[in-house]
Amino acid sequence: MKTMGLSRLVLVNPKCFPDPQAVARAADADDILAQALVCGSLDEALAGAIHVYALSARHRNLGPSALPARAAATEIVAHAGEAEVALLFGNETAGLSNAEVQRCQRTVFIPANPDYSSLNLASAVQLLCYELRLAAFDGQPPVVTRAVAFASPLAPHQDVERFYQHLERVMVSSGFLDPQRPRRLLAKLRRLFGRAELEGDEINILRGLLDAVERKLARQGAITERAENSGPK
Amino acid sequence: MKTMGLSRLVLVNPKCFPDPQAVARAADADDILAQALVCGSLDEALAGAIHVYALSARHRNLGPSALPARAAATEIVAHAGEAEVALLFGNETAGLSNAEVQRCQRTVFIPANPDYSSLNLASAVQLLCYELRLAAFDGQPPVVTRAVAFASPLAPHQDVERFYQHLERVMVSSGFLDPQRPRRLLAKLRRLFGRAELEGDEINILRGLLDAVERKLARQGAITERAENSGPK
Repeated sequence: MKTMGLSRLVLVNPKCFPDPQAVARAADADDILAQALVCGSLDEALAGAIHVYALSARHRNLGPSALPARAAATEIVAHAGEAEVALLFGNETAGLSNAEVQRCQRTVFIPANPDYSSLNLASAVQLLCYELRLAAFDGQPPVVTRAVAFASPLAPHQDVERFYQHLERVMVSSGFLDPQRPRRLLAKLRRLFGRAELEGDEINILRGLLDAVERKLARQGAITERAENSGPK
Repeated sequence: MKTMGLSRLVLVNPKCFPDPQAVARAADADDILAQALVCGSLDEALAGAIHVYALSARHRNLGPSALPARAAATEIVAHAGEAEVALLFGNETAGLSNAEVQRCQRTVFIPANPDYSSLNLASAVQLLCYELRLAAFDGQPPVVTRAVAFASPLAPHQDVERFYQHLERVMVSSGFLDPQRPRRLLAKLRRLFGRAELEGDEINILRGLLDAVERKLARQGAITERAENSGPK
């Protein structure tokens, strides 16, 4: 609940409360447990609620209409602006009875593998709370790509072109690219780097590497030349 | 996993496997555990994977680009029709290391309460599997287009890792990278190439260039050595 920003927990006839094991497992969400309201009956727990949604994997012949979690979340968030809404979950072992479900206006189901459709209670709660959070922030759709701290601005065209020229020079001087038979090597590398959309910093790194290779090849070339000139004819 | 119709579980260095407690908790999903593949390293686990998504609540300065779970699920389902996709989760206590995250093309985050954003591992897995199921069965996910005449299939994980090793070798032998002070050069290049999602052909071209540079440096190195040995003291 807390991971999704929900805080009001109501417990109906808990077997043990407060429960040291529950507190331990709650980790830093133990404030939710500490504030939980404990009721002696379902009716007491639901007092004041206008809309009540029951989570149930089972189909009920006599139950209220059933909605998948995502659609239910949209509806719940719309209601929550103006009225009390309650979500009702059964316990881990028995779930909700027909009588309990019939106290609700809707059932909510989680679309699942029909051959194995019953989620753990904790998973079901997590999932519903997640859908509620997403439905609540629908006005502000989640950011698709979080800014990476060290990301730098995209490199301008001329810097990208200078990188390609530099790359080509090293491809030739290393003997990898035969200018007489260039095949499509450069076009393919352009496609790769174009797809990535190079940042200014990345160009600097790549050109730094090309520089280092060129310097090393030139230095060794000079020594080689010296060696060949001074060596035996 | 099983509630959402997923079945392929790979475990990297599990503390205990098979684990009677895990089997007991799996209830009727123990078939997933029984079929789980156990690997000794992350690279072994990811061998053959084309797209690797890491789930991480933490923001990584040097990590790959991050997508919220729903958008990631759409993308994953689109990829899964044509290539192996892996989802990588860290363990409950430590999560994923930066090095592990850098082996992936994307990170996935679950939009959550910013003051309490870390879900249990089981909840996170449940949620991702749920989003995958909905993406797979709720309408037609948008197709990821890579329509380019000379596009080749994406390179599998192990080939990409071998390219990074080769690149690092040349970065060191050219004098560009000081292994004692690596800064974040490799992480930044991983981010760049991860974003591009390298194709098999592109790996061949890049490694061909690295090979040519290495050969040239080695040949000239040998001549240099000869020259230095035969030169005046």
